[in-house]
Amino acid sequence: MTHATPAPQHADAGALDAVDPLASYRARFVGAESPLVYLDGNSLGRPLAVTGPRLAQFVAEGWGARLIRGWDEGWLELPERLGDDLGRVCLGAAAGQSVVADSTTVLLYKAIRAAVALRPGRTEIVVDTDNFPTDRYVAEGVAAECGLRLRWIRTEPRAGVTAEQVADAVGPRTALVLLSHVAYRSAWLADVETLTALAHDAGALVLWDLCHSAGAVPVEVDAWQVDLAVGCTYKYLNAGPGSPAFVYVAARHHDDLAQPVRGWMGAADPFAMGPQFAPAPGVRRMLSGTPPVLGMLALADMLELLAEVGVAAVREKSVGLTSYAVTRADALLAPLGVEVASPRDPARRGGHVTLDHPRMREVAAALWTRDVLPDFRAPHGLRLGLSPLSTSHAEVERGLCAVADVLAGLSG
Amino acid sequence: MTHATPAPQHADAGALDAVDPLASYRARFVGAESPLVYLDGNSLGRPLAVTGPRLAQFVAEGWGARLIRGWDEGWLELPERLGDDLGRVCLGAAAGQSVVADSTTVLLYKAIRAAVALRPGRTEIVVDTDNFPTDRYVAEGVAAECGLRLRWIRTEPRAGVTAEQVADAVGPRTALVLLSHVAYRSAWLADVETLTALAHDAGALVLWDLCHSAGAVPVEVDAWQVDLAVGCTYKYLNAGPGSPAFVYVAARHHDDLAQPVRGWMGAADPFAMGPQFAPAPGVRRMLSGTPPVLGMLALADMLELLAEVGVAAVREKSVGLTSYAVTRADALLAPLGVEVASPRDPARRGGHVTLDHPRMREVAAALWTRDVLPDFRAPHGLRLGLSPLSTSHAEVERGLCAVADVLAGLSG
Repeated sequence: MTHATPAPQHADAGALDAVDPLASYRARFVGAESPLVYLDGNSLGRPLAVTGPRLAQFVAEGWGARLIRGWDEGWLELPERLGDDLGRVCLGAAAGQSVVADSTTVLLYKAIRAAVALRPGRTEIVVDTDNFPTDRYVAEGVAAECGLRLRWIRTEPRAGVTAEQVADAVGPRTALVLLSHVAYRSAWLADVETLTALAHDAGALVLWDLCHSAGAVPVEVDAWQVDLAVGCTYKYLNAGPGSPAFVYVAARHHDDLAQPVRGWMGAADPFAMGPQFAPAPGVRRMLSGTPPVLGMLALADMLELLAEVGVAAVREKSVGLTSYAVTRADALLAPLGVEVASPRDPARRGGHVTLDHPRMREVAAALWTRDVLPDFRAPHGLRLGLSPLSTSHAEVERGLCAVADVLAGLSG
Repeated sequence: MTHATPAPQHADAGALDAVDPLASYRARFVGAESPLVYLDGNSLGRPLAVTGPRLAQFVAEGWGARLIRGWDEGWLELPERLGDDLGRVCLGAAAGQSVVADSTTVLLYKAIRAAVALRPGRTEIVVDTDNFPTDRYVAEGVAAECGLRLRWIRTEPRAGVTAEQVADAVGPRTALVLLSHVAYRSAWLADVETLTALAHDAGALVLWDLCHSAGAVPVEVDAWQVDLAVGCTYKYLNAGPGSPAFVYVAARHHDDLAQPVRGWMGAADPFAMGPQFAPAPGVRRMLSGTPPVLGMLALADMLELLAEVGVAAVREKSVGLTSYAVTRADALLAPLGVEVASPRDPARRGGHVTLDHPRMREVAAALWTRDVLPDFRAPHGLRLGLSPLSTSHAEVERGLCAVADVLAGLSG
């Protein structure tokens, strides 16, 4: 091959890490010292080093020693306690409006059903075509069973939903608008406050998917007048593969709130075991089954860390990392035909950067064999998820150099 | 006080433990050597000693080291793999009909919705009054939203559903019969095969709640022609507080099977992320969200142990323990006014024994202060859950002596 391999390490990366006030947090995560380049923290965040021992300790001293008493000693309140912590630290939500439970999909189902029931007589759910598949599938399912119609906003893959599109889509028939705060492919960061206000102007509710923002991008659900929100905890909240999800419902909707999966944990008195279901007051009625305690412990660890650092500082680091990735992609990869598919304006960009190239599917596969782990998103996007607290500029640099090397090899 | 305190240890208990072929397994559980008397293994089973270290190892070497690659290296298949293992070891289910997911409540919701959709035009769900509350609540919720009617079988608290009752309740309007294999209060063991056949004679489907039997009582869903079954894994399957549940759907129903919570994990190709939802073939379409990997690891440990021991041997031990409890309750507690509320015929009794006394609420509270942990079930039942592999006869004896002591003190 005659191409010049790009320099393996850009001098700026080390300098940026040296002045990064959050650089030391990287050492708190498992695998921080491994040579592996992890650029998929927006799909599955690394575990905190404290989490493994804490789980073993919980099995021995919590589950194993307290046994059934644990339910009275805090486990039963975990969905609300962690929900409140998450609300305070990451969502801008006052207490009593968020719970941790189920999976994102199940909570989306319950939240969409609850939302459309709050707007009886309205017949449409507005969804954008670039929403995450499970969101679209759930919305499609609810629409089919409730006799509603989906109204699609067709988003460009490299952009996101605009105010004009929402204003055009909503009307007196709109029950709910279902949108993602950060688009899972392009990283487009929606203007939640403006889009929410447009939906409200039409009398509709808004449900925001926060999967790709919670923990990395500041969220202000209360201030933005959000009605409902759902998100996962295994991305920037580092709670582990398949960890429980969360749901937020604004207090103003609680009195009339009803969701279809009526279970004992959403009942007013779970242990009365009475003949009739009576829903719990407040957001607790969004719960259904027994809280997944083991799956919530890692989330507690990460929320403690995020409370210490503050999401504003995390966002600053995130913007720094993604800006660095964009700058270096322009320098290293644009000459090889790569295009930045994420917004160049950091104010409109979430925590990841997507790079397009016709042969990115091959590139992603080749990178994995080199222990460089980005994500691939069809049709031809390489998605770099830069988890702010566990990713260094040097790691981004090594990843981009590897992309350049693989691409040069493919075309060589 | 002038009452004679019962002997603290019955000689037979030690002798029975000495000849118990499964006695040595007790040492595999956390806390087996503690003085605590744990009689609530049917609410939350003790952890296996291997589980804590295995979780820590998973965080370090699985989640932490394999990161996103773990999904391709087995995590995505865990719901089906563990479902198949559970089916083979505990349920009498051939492979491809069971998955582990969600919570019992959520799976009940999906299974009931799926079942009634398989019997369009039929308008009734038959439920018994002593079914676990969450089962009744979910059935009530589904009936309300689907325009169906609940038809109640009124069971006596100390008995269970009889063939005559089911024969009377089912008819051409019955879509589904929802029953529990083991009644959560009395431990009444239903004759699944006979009751299922009666429902089928009326053209209805049957959904069995296996929460209180899976892992302790042999189940033969395939041989008994069961249509659907749901159960939890934190009782006799020792998978931890709030661990995921399981659902079985007989293969003959798969082609027409549809459930309302359409998510990417129940889609034919989760990573195609296409515009339309197409359900996965087989029982996998019962899945919705991302599999709760951390919550499934303890279940894998317990299934390994159950495969080694065999559920038939576990049941033999269970019958021995509950028979011993009944015999000793008659001797020690009947003179104090206690009545055995569970079936005396071991063939009709599950893995727990319920003892009635007007003051059992006080008794249960007093026992907890002595580190004797049974469960209390209103109105006046003390429920002794005798998890077969982690409970010794001596532990049962100590528990019953403590009940006698507390009761004697109350009346002294």
